[in-house]
Order: sequence, then structure tokens, then C-alpha cells
Amino acid sequence: MKIIVQKFGGSSVANVDRIKNVARRVVSYKKKGFGLVVVVSALGDTTDDLIALAAQITDTPPEREMDMLLSTGEQISCALLAMAIEELGFHAISFTGGQVGIKTDMTHTKAKIIDISGERIKEALKKGKIVIVTGFQGVTQDQDITTLGRGGSDLTAVALAKAVGARNCEIYTDVEGVYTTDPRIVPQAKKLKQITYDEMLEMASLGAQVMQARSIEVAKKFDIPIHVRSSFNLAEGTMILKEADKMENFVISGVTLNRNEAKITVCDVPDKPGIAAKLFKEISKNGISVDTIVQNVSRKGSTDVSFTVPIGDLTKTKSLMMRFTKKIGGGRVLENRDIARVSIVGVGMKTHSGVAARMFEALAEKKVNIDMITTSEISISCIIKKKFAERAVRSIHAKFGLG
Amino acid sequence: MKIIVQKFGGSSVANVDRIKNVARRVVSYKKKGFGLVVVVSALGDTTDDLIALAAQITDTPPEREMDMLLSTGEQISCALLAMAIEELGFHAISFTGGQVGIKTDMTHTKAKIIDISGERIKEALKKGKIVIVTGFQGVTQDQDITTLGRGGSDLTAVALAKAVGARNCEIYTDVEGVYTTDPRIVPQAKKLKQITYDEMLEMASLGAQVMQARSIEVAKKFDIPIHVRSSFNLAEGTMILKEADKMENFVISGVTLNRNEAKITVCDVPDKPGIAAKLFKEISKNGISVDTIVQNVSRKGSTDVSFTVPIGDLTKTKSLMMRFTKKIGGGRVLENRDIARVSIVGVGMKTHSGVAARMFEALAEKKVNIDMITTSEISISCIIKKKFAERAVRSIHAKFGLG
Repeated sequence: MKIIVQKFGGSSVANVDRIKNVARRVVSYKKKGFGLVVVVSALGDTTDDLIALAAQITDTPPEREMDMLLSTGEQISCALLAMAIEELGFHAISFTGGQVGIKTDMTHTKAKIIDISGERIKEALKKGKIVIVTGFQGVTQDQDITTLGRGGSDLTAVALAKAVGARNCEIYTDVEGVYTTDPRIVPQAKKLKQITYDEMLEMASLGAQVMQARSIEVAKKFDIPIHVRSSFNLAEGTMILKEADKMENFVISGVTLNRNEAKITVCDVPDKPGIAAKLFKEISKNGISVDTIVQNVSRKGSTDVSFTVPIGDLTKTKSLMMRFTKKIGGGRVLENRDIARVSIVGVGMKTHSGVAARMFEALAEKKVNIDMITTSEISISCIIKKKFAERAVRSIHAKFGLG
Repeated sequence: MKIIVQKFGGSSVANVDRIKNVARRVVSYKKKGFGLVVVVSALGDTTDDLIALAAQITDTPPEREMDMLLSTGEQISCALLAMAIEELGFHAISFTGGQVGIKTDMTHTKAKIIDISGERIKEALKKGKIVIVTGFQGVTQDQDITTLGRGGSDLTAVALAKAVGARNCEIYTDVEGVYTTDPRIVPQAKKLKQITYDEMLEMASLGAQVMQARSIEVAKKFDIPIHVRSSFNLAEGTMILKEADKMENFVISGVTLNRNEAKITVCDVPDKPGIAAKLFKEISKNGISVDTIVQNVSRKGSTDVSFTVPIGDLTKTKSLMMRFTKKIGGGRVLENRDIARVSIVGVGMKTHSGVAARMFEALAEKKVNIDMITTSEISISCIIKKKFAERAVRSIHAKFGLG
């Protein structure tokens, strides 16, 4: 029996009608003879409602109790989906993460999966049952409930696909797949038929919202193809797969935009070996992740170091840097919130030359000045002024003929 | 360390303010040096809301899935209460029934507790934590979630009191204790300081709503005193305890009223040995519990058999009896919905004579005709016309000087 894992996000099960809809879709696959493992998120706004309840009680809820609270959301949607499937005359059984042996570490609210036994799932599948599993959660060795953090249900789906030997993992969501760029910015944006794990990883880290990086990493590691598609229609979505399986290779697959970064510039840093290491160690040990870094050429034995951080970490980073310059030496610390990162992603870059030049051209044509540039093997990012962000995305999208 | 188990019902945790209230009360006991195990029901109407959700999907939800669904209610209130207690600066930890080893049989929606390990509770108490446990639920050997049915949270509290060696179990509710009768019928009704397990059992089975019989049975078996009291004030409530510990013994403790029964009369049943046994076996094998039974003196080799059943089982019972008379012989089957059961309960009956006579007198004085009578060691019940019900209760309550 060929097993498929299907994951339905919160918007796909936002109300009773949508749950019934999901049930019908699941059953249609069962009729085709597939073994089905269905991972479900919490109903619509349930998780937010529970967070709001907790907020009325305390500003600092213990994380273990937060997990105890939030995990109920998926338990509810799982039970309801199982009922809806039974109502259609098919056998379903729902399980919590703990019941199917999703063991995690003890990092409450953002736990890591350590192991999945999946025995009960296999047993139930053998009996012909449709198996429903709560997304987003597991248990520690002590049976304490943990949640997996953002994108946790996707991760559950991919990890279960590995555990039960599924050949395919379908992620149902409220968009039809992965697009060449955000269709709200570029109406001509096209749905991609295929994208590689690495491209998707780059796009996720560069601002695309479709899937979190961690589930794609797991899918890549175990080579589990992911089909991202809409739960509201039957259209094929986007397959995320390994490079060798990708049929069509355009030069670039997508243009992403991230407006949630800010820039810090530390002026007049002494240009001595080890200073940069010290500076960034200071930041990383405070749990802040730095992105683009630019260091200017040294003048008179000192240099300016610029880098970007998530906008929420800006204030903290700035005060860290001010303490740093006092101790180590250095000048003023400047902040700039008026930046956006526009990036292109594509495995085609590895074999095509002139990709960067074309991107810069697209920006120049629209008189967009480039502040900083970084590149990886399959992506190029430019930091530009925020007000030029959408104009830049449109220009690049057109330049590479993605529309 | 002296351990107390405290149970808070749904109305005691109906909203965030009440949860905070419960937290303050729990903490006040902690400050006195008690070890605390707190059992919580679902927030206010949560359970009803979940049942309504399921009803939108199916009329026949699988019971296993129903338990999966409903058990989330207590998990939410437990987590929130733990947060509220932590917010007050005390350490709390919440557990599901499964996590503290409440093992049940597999009768979903009305499971029986088989065993409680309670190890994690003892561990947490040793560390000085206030332990919060979900009421109403446990797990099967396979870790499937079960719920315990009506009164399940009380049962959880009493069973946990036994498991952790608590000397006292407090049941917090929206009434101040057990009353001599329903104060809505007799405004002069008095709160009882004490009542024996047996009296409470009789009262529960005769219509008093305060506590379900099953938790009292467990308390009696293990001699765990129960303190029924209000969660909205600090007044002492009613202690339920064994007869030997009861300080004050009035002749009767209370007057109860049950308007949810109906009477069936099977006419002209052949008066042969074994016929009555056959008749009531027919009923019991259909899961209907019969209460008062009256059989008239035989005339011409046949007799009339009357008995009462819960009003919800009336139609089913009547059709069972009609099939029975066709098969075995017998006349018409009559139903009567216009009945009420008024009862007096008291261990004092065992040593005082003339109690029944006084009760009948009280009814006669108000011209209330008695249809059927049954007695147990510590109770007397009369079946009367429904319209006389409240008048009868008031008259008996006054006659025995309970006001």
C-alpha cells in the first residue's frame, strides 16, 4: 500500500464546513487505494485565542504550561476530522503526537523532534484506517507535552512521512503553491511546477512565507518530495524535490522580498585581527542572528562594519554595540530601519553567468540604488531603500521573464 | 506534609477572573503548609461548546473521538490555573490524567478507573510544587484518552485523594454545601454540617444534584472525608464522612425530590413463578434501570406489576413490555408521566421508630395521596402526583423540623 501524508493548515480547517471538505478530499484518496496519514493544525484562530486567554492571566506564562494549553488546538481539530471521515462511512482514528511516539527534546514552545516510532500509525493503517495526527506537537521522555514552534505542523508531516515510509507529503494551505514572487506585489507572478529543496530553503530564509526552513531541511535530508497545494481546489501545486528530479530549470525560480530587517553600522572599528570575530560573537551569544555583513576598506587603521538584523532585535543589538565600542574602541553606532532585502533564487545560477549583472541592471533601470550585496551559491540579495522595494521586485521579475 | 485534594467545577473556573480567584484560594492553603493536588473541570461551557461542534459534524460521533475532543477542556483550564498560580509567585505544574497514570478501562465516554499510580504527583509535591490535574479523564492501557462520564471530575478528585494519601478532599462548587432539601422549593432549607456517605448516596440516587453516587462510593470505600463547599466564599460547607465520625444525628438529614421518573403498569401478568424475573430481565438487558416496584395481590391467577423508570426510557420500556405481554401473556401496558418521587433520608431512621408514619402524616395533612411506597434502611420514598410535589416536600421538611 502506497502511503501519502497530507497536512492541512489552520485555514483549511477553520470551520465545520471546511473540516467536512477536508474529510471529503481525504476520503477521495482513500478510495484510490492509498494509505493515508493526515496531519492537522488547530482550527483557524484557536491558537491565537488560547494565547490571548493566557495573556489575560500572565505576561510570562511558563513555557511548559503554554505547550499544555496550545496543544489542545490540534487535538480538537483531529477529533473533529476523524468524526467527519467516519460520517462519510470510512474508518478514521485520531492520535496525539505523544500517542504515535513523536519524542522531542525538552525545549518547550520550540522543541526538536528526536525520534518517531510510528508503530501505532502502521498498525492502524494495516487495519485500513485513515490515521489523523495532531500537528505541531510531541512529548518528552517524561510524557510532558511539547510544541514544535512555527511551522511545526509541516515538520510533523514531513517527519511522519519519513517514519511511515511515505513516498509523498502533501502540504495543503491557503495558497496554490510556491510562486515566482508574491502575487500581491506582482500580479503576473506564476506558480512554479517544481522547485528544489535548496531553492525553497533560500526562499524561506529570504522572506517567502509558504513553508518554514526546518521542514524543508528534513524533507531534503530524507528526500521526501513535498507537494504544496491549495485545500480549496483540486489544482496541482508546487513540488519541492531534489535537484536531480527537477525537470525544468529556469535560470532563477523566484524573487523574494523581506521588509523585516534593519541595518546597524558600527563606525571606526579598529582594523585589527580578531575584532570582527569579537563583535559578532557578542551578537550571536545574545541569540540574535545577523544576515548581510559589509565591511568597508580600512582607512587610517579603522573601518566601518555594517550588518542587518531582524527588526525586532534592532534596539537590543544597538545597545550591545554601544557597549562594545566603549570597551573595544570604535565610533558611533548608526541604525537604519529604512531598508528592504530583494533577492533572486535559482539553482540555474550555478551554470549561468551574468545573473548578478542582470539583477543589478533591473534595479538600475528603475533608479534603485543598491546599499549592500550578498550572494550564496543559488541566491543574490540586494539591500535597498524600503520605498523602492516593490518597484525593484517587479523590475527583476520582468527582467528574468518570470511572468 | 499533609496533603489536600481540591476540586473546582466548571462554574468555579468559568472565566479568567474566577481562575485567578481559584489560584488565590489554592495559594492560601499552600501558605498554610499543605501539599496541594488540585483537580479542575473544563471552563464553564467549554464541554457543551465542544459537544455542539461535534454535533455540527455528525449525530453519531465515535466515542473514542468524542473523548479525544472533550478531554481538551480540562487540559485548557489546568494549564491556565497553573499559569495563574505561577503568576502569584508559587510553583505549579499541570498534568493530564494520562500523565499521572490514571488508568481506565476502554469504555469511552464513561470509563471506570482501574488504577492510579500517582508517582509524578508525589514527585512534584516533594519538590514543593502545587499539582494541577485534569478532572474527568484518564487513559487506557494503549494510552487512548477516556473520559469518566458525569461527575467524572469529582471521581478524579476522590480517587487521587486515595492515591496520594490525602486526608481530605474538598469539592468546590456553586452551592455552599448539601442542604436539607432544595432551597428553591423550601427557602428555610438548612445547610447540613455533616452527612454520612450512605445518606449522601441515598440522596444522590433520589435526585439530589450535589454529587454523583460513584465518587461518594469511592470515598466511602477508602474512608476519604469530602468537604463540599462554595468556591465563591470562605464559608464551611458540608462534610461527607462515615457514620462513626458524624457528630450530630438528627432523625433525618434531608428531603429529596425527583420529577424525572415515569410509571409503567403491566396489567394481568400471569401469577406464576419466574414471570417477574423474566419481565425485569427483559428491561435490565436493555440497559434501563428500574426503581420502585409494586406488585398487587393476585386475583384470579394474574396480577398487575407497576414500576418506575427514568422518563427518558419510558417509550422504550413501554414497547419492550408490549412485546413481552404478547409473548408471555398479560394485558394492557399503561404509562403515567404524572408522578414525582419525594423521599426522606437519614441514618437516624435505623434507631428511631415511627419515621414512616410521620412522613405519611405530613402528606395526609396536605391531602397528598400516596401512589407507591418503597423503603431502604436509611430512606423512605413515596410516589405521588407531580402537581403535589413541592407541597409535599415543604410539608415533610417542616414536619421533621429541618428548617
